Amino acid sequence: MAENLLTFSNPVFAQFAYYSAISIGKMFAIVPMIVYRRFSTGTFANKEDVLSRDKKGNPTAKVGINESVERGRRNHLNDMENIFPFVLIGFFYVLTKPDLNVATWHFRVFAFSRIVHMLAYQIPIKQPTRALSFGVGMGTMLSMLYQVLTYSA
Amino acid sequence: MAENLLTFSNPVFAQFAYYSAISIGKMFAIVPMIVYRRFSTGTFANKEDVLSRDKKGNPTAKVGINESVERGRRNHLNDMENIFPFVLIGFFYVLTKPDLNVATWHFRVFAFSRIVHMLAYQIPIKQPTRALSFGVGMGTMLSMLYQVLTYSA
Amino acid sequence: MAENLLTFSNPVFAQFAYYSAISIGKMFAIVPMIVYRRFSTGTFANKEDVLSRDKKGNPTAKVGINESVERGRRNHLNDMENIFPFVLIGFFYVLTKPDLNVATWHFRVFAFSRIVHMLAYQIPIKQPTRALSFGVGMGTMLSMLYQVLTYSA
Repeated sequence: MAENLLTFSNPVFAQFAYYSAISIGKMFAIVPMIVYRRFSTGTFANKEDVLSRDKKGNPTAKVGINESVERGRRNHLNDMENIFPFVLIGFFYVLTKPDLNVATWHFRVFAFSRIVHMLAYQIPIKQPTRALSFGVGMGTMLSMLYQVLTYSA
Repeated sequence: MAENLLTFSNPVFAQFAYYSAISIGKMFAIVPMIVYRRFSTGTFANKEDVLSRDKKGNPTAKVGINESVERGRRNHLNDMENIFPFVLIGFFYVLTKPDLNVATWHFRVFAFSRIVHMLAYQIPIKQPTRALSFGVGMGTMLSMLYQVLTYSA
Repeated sequence: MAENLLTFSNPVFAQFAYYSAISIGKMFAIVPMIVYRRFSTGTFANKEDVLSRDKKGNPTAKVGINESVERGRRNHLNDMENIFPFVLIGFFYVLTKPDLNVATWHFRVFAFSRIVHMLAYQIPIKQPTRALSFGVGMGTMLSMLYQVLTYSA
């Protein structure tokens, strides 16, 4: 019977779980930022979200687009495009029995690149900071993906 | 060798698989709603999607934006932002050996909150129904995420 | 103790890992296409992305919307809506101990349908090619989802 590698007693898996949780948690952090910007600018996506009324009963906020809200939403979308595949590929990657040190650095660099990406996007820091952090994260995923493909092919 | 927990013979995992499948299936249910609204309002995203022609050969539908279509798409996007991380975190959470009862209620409350969220979004029901159902679902995920982090750290 | 099925020594899992990696890799392929179109049309999503300046120091590109960029982005979003749930459902499906031949064809048809979908979207090929490839991919997922639900319920 095959060895069970998807367990916290496998140190590679424990590192993978830790950095996956950090990355998903970081992704959730953008949500209150978007909500805050919607309320502070009075910009909502749906009619029923506009709750506040002035004395005459007219809505005091509007359904529309606000650049700071959209910036948060683009960040969230970019996180989905990167953090979800990272975790999915990671499950396969852990099963290719990578070296603990090599694997941990893949996970660490990915998680760190996504934190830098968010800071570069939301502060914002001038380019190419965001482009580079995106590229570094994508690079670690391509490396993991390559190892899964060569292992399974 | 470590115990194998990612199997249907682990009751926590069986519950997790069941509510994950329910949540992903619910997510797919929004797709035909969006397609139906595109056809009934004649609003498409791509030129080549406009198939119908009048007698003079002019398209009878248009490429554009329709609020009821967008409402469906926003719901779909919100599902991706929540249901995908739920399933991803769930795999790690199951491996932290949670109590069956506690875990099942996490999965059940999450799946239920997403069904309420969709109903509140698509009927639509007035706020704060949708905001609350979103918050409850996010709360169950944060609880699972916290347990994964404390277990792996 | 339960048999360990989430391992490359399980041929169903090895096939699943292979076609998942192919599908996620295909999804990443759209990214450089979007970046290329942003630069070739000079259309960016964020102010800080517009780096190039003319002799007078004015930006030579603009923040805005370009149809070819949007076509790439819609493709990417559709991939997320389909490839992520495929991999998530796949993990559960592998654990239902499907027949190797049946399972491999599910994975193969899904991955192939998503490649056809991308070609139909980006060339573009006239409808109903894209709609059919989307439907075929969704069909394989619904079949897998059904088996997970009946196995876990």
